Amino acid sequence: MTLTETNSWTGIRKELLRRIHSRVWQPGEQIPHEADLAEEFGCARTTVNRALRDLAESGLVVRKRRAGTRVALNPPQRATLTIPIIREEVEATGRTYRHSLLERDFRPLPPMLHGAFPATLSEDVLYLKTLHFADNRPYAYEERYINLNAAPEARDTAFDEVSANEWLVHNAPYSHGDISFFAVSADKTLSRKLDAGSGTALFAMERITWAGNMPITHVHLIFAPGYRMRTEI
Amino acid sequence: MTLTETNSWTGIRKELLRRIHSRVWQPGEQIPHEADLAEEFGCARTTVNRALRDLAESGLVVRKRRAGTRVALNPPQRATLTIPIIREEVEATGRTYRHSLLERDFRPLPPMLHGAFPATLSEDVLYLKTLHFADNRPYAYEERYINLNAAPEARDTAFDEVSANEWLVHNAPYSHGDISFFAVSADKTLSRKLDAGSGTALFAMERITWAGNMPITHVHLIFAPGYRMRTEI
Repeated sequence: MTLTETNSWTGIRKELLRRIHSRVWQPGEQIPHEADLAEEFGCARTTVNRALRDLAESGLVVRKRRAGTRVALNPPQRATLTIPIIREEVEATGRTYRHSLLERDFRPLPPMLHGAFPATLSEDVLYLKTLHFADNRPYAYEERYINLNAAPEARDTAFDEVSANEWLVHNAPYSHGDISFFAVSADKTLSRKLDAGSGTALFAMERITWAGNMPITHVHLIFAPGYRMRTEI
Repeated sequence: MTLTETNSWTGIRKELLRRIHSRVWQPGEQIPHEADLAEEFGCARTTVNRALRDLAESGLVVRKRRAGTRVALNPPQRATLTIPIIREEVEATGRTYRHSLLERDFRPLPPMLHGAFPATLSEDVLYLKTLHFADNRPYAYEERYINLNAAPEARDTAFDEVSANEWLVHNAPYSHGDISFFAVSADKTLSRKLDAGSGTALFAMERITWAGNMPITHVHLIFAPGYRMRTEI
């Protein structure tokens, strides 16, 4: 390790990672005490601590107050997924984005959302069907419910210029959400909308977001055939 | 904000997040200078800086040296995926895990991996087919190639007691990898192995991992019908 790298906690982390990956420190093995590492690296103990905390957050080491720090036995593989708005995802591949609003109406909360949107049971929600395009080819089909208490301006928004996918990011930011990924088979509607053979396997995503306790939106996105969601670990 | 929360940068971050989510600070708006925030919160400027750096890493604010810090216009949605070993994933749902090794042989590197495994072009790789079970029901079907230069002990390992999925975590830890998620349609083999109707849409994952420049393994995992990968944002 060069001297410059020890100036920062990220430099220390890099060296600790190297020792874990090269198995200088074996899975399950106890690693030296913070104070000893600080001495070895010629840095403040807080710098070592910061690096160890980061490795612990990533699940690579396990820290116990009295028992010290060990290399994790089964480090979970963590990947960060970036989920951009669809326009940006399409434009990032050099293609032209457009969307088409297929349906927009107010309707009672569907039964599948009674659990997630309890406060809005008695009120209509805004239902939108949107088709996203990349270079005029179908890219993703979107079905969305919006809680009008969380985004009252949605009631008078046409969503023809800016899709709800993008509008909500600016007009009803969320604090947290649940997201899941799965596969669906193209039924008649999906087959027609996404230009997919009937029964084609399609990648799909379902997402609910909240602002505090207030549900904002439920969205179901189904991507055109061949879609892959990629990331690095 | 209570006084105790200002003791830590995470407390400051929480308050900054609250202002962004509640739109006290609008998307695109410039937020107060670091020094002014430090004064407001009665904390060190480095504490505010730490919180802002974290928000910038999450893409929620955009920092420019001269122009100050702005609330991001299109904050990307970032989700952390935890990808545990399959045994732990199954056991976490209270079910019993087992695996069955269906095939194990040495073969030339398949053409689809020539790009990813350039250094091993002239040598055989270990090919494994594994079926993972949850409570004796098929859970996931795995096809894997292992670079024997990266994991020489794999040559003499039977993978009947511990699956390669778990063995590699302990015996050939990786530094980084590429991962992608997509949907596949059950062909004859998948249909039989995973107890799925022919043509069923299945959730699939492909992953390549490296230790530095050395490729370790390529794995293709196809999950039984109904599988969902969940996370929080």
